[in-house]
Amino acid sequence: MHRVKVRVVEDALDANNTIARANRDDFDRHGVTVVNLMSAPGAGKTTLLERALQGLSVRAGVLEGDVQGSLDADRLASLHLPVVQLNTGNGFGGECHLDANMVRSALPALPLEDIDLLIVENVGNLVCPAEFRIGEDVRIMVSSVAEGEDKPLKYPLMFRACELVIINKLDLLPHVDFDMERFLHHLDAVHPGVETIQLSARTGEGVDEFRAWLERVPARVPA
Amino acid sequence: MHRVKVRVVEDALDANNTIARANRDDFDRHGVTVVNLMSAPGAGKTTLLERALQGLSVRAGVLEGDVQGSLDADRLASLHLPVVQLNTGNGFGGECHLDANMVRSALPALPLEDIDLLIVENVGNLVCPAEFRIGEDVRIMVSSVAEGEDKPLKYPLMFRACELVIINKLDLLPHVDFDMERFLHHLDAVHPGVETIQLSARTGEGVDEFRAWLERVPARVPA
Repeated sequence: MHRVKVRVVEDALDANNTIARANRDDFDRHGVTVVNLMSAPGAGKTTLLERALQGLSVRAGVLEGDVQGSLDADRLASLHLPVVQLNTGNGFGGECHLDANMVRSALPALPLEDIDLLIVENVGNLVCPAEFRIGEDVRIMVSSVAEGEDKPLKYPLMFRACELVIINKLDLLPHVDFDMERFLHHLDAVHPGVETIQLSARTGEGVDEFRAWLERVPARVPA
Repeated sequence: MHRVKVRVVEDALDANNTIARANRDDFDRHGVTVVNLMSAPGAGKTTLLERALQGLSVRAGVLEGDVQGSLDADRLASLHLPVVQLNTGNGFGGECHLDANMVRSALPALPLEDIDLLIVENVGNLVCPAEFRIGEDVRIMVSSVAEGEDKPLKYPLMFRACELVIINKLDLLPHVDFDMERFLHHLDAVHPGVETIQLSARTGEGVDEFRAWLERVPARVPA
């Protein structure tokens, strides 16, 4: 039983990688750089995008992944960017992550010819999104100080599978038991040398640094 | 491809339910009531247990579920209760939830004859734990005010699959954008009439009410 299950999982990951490469070819053909934005539920991904995408110097679009509903896509509507909602609850079994096939199903709704940067906001989850490539160039992980300093040790795959770790909700630091030095020490243990940005999406502190990072993404990806 | 996948998932859930019933039989034979404690990562489940299990009038044990590591079990060691760590990363493929088979594998390490109440702290995740029964009597969902008031609408299955919703980190209310009335309205939309307890595991406010709830669990479960 266990061997069969492992085989099924391996086959599914192989199939996913094949579709991820097809997505990547489509993105490359349109010159679109793709960011996979991951975090636990409630870490502040959408609030961060509301802030960071205002005044961005590259043409961006957003693919919103959720189990159900379109709350986050609705919040981003005022940015006047192309925003497409993708629900894993519709025909995808309510999956706890986006996979390459789900993203592929959304491609026809995305105006790839009109954007340079596509940000895919993944389903809030600290385990499975790290296992499924979707054809992205870079992966960003958002962790909030309200979640505690132990998260890199408890969810190491997620903190390893990214090029940037954002530490959000800096404004809550005086009100929670979170030792930044210890968090960074844990993070360095699982992903030595990974880039970090500390910010507060709520107050805006540090968001300029993230916006500048996003604007440099196309340049950091080898053509 | 998609039909095959659905079939595999259905078979897996059937197999899970069979094992969950076997767990339940074992728990019943020893007169142990079982609580499945679920939440997003960092919602404060372990801190809540550290507080609530002190001075509990029934004999409790804890099964700690994590992808890897034993940080939470180590934190609970000072309570001098039976605590068993279960890692989904060891032989279970790094699963994002506990299932009945994983819990079954831990049963030999649990002194069922010495406890009346077993609390199973699930892997931090707002999607998959709701789909896998483990042989529990009641399910408790912990949501923190730092996660935002939209969570019941975004993860309805989780908020529906529980008998009690704990709203944690009340001490952060002055520092976050969280409208309690709106959260309760959203919760009522997805799970009308579900019991709720508002508390702060950090300050201890409201924890007495939760402890009393836990002590009443064996009585509320039909024999």
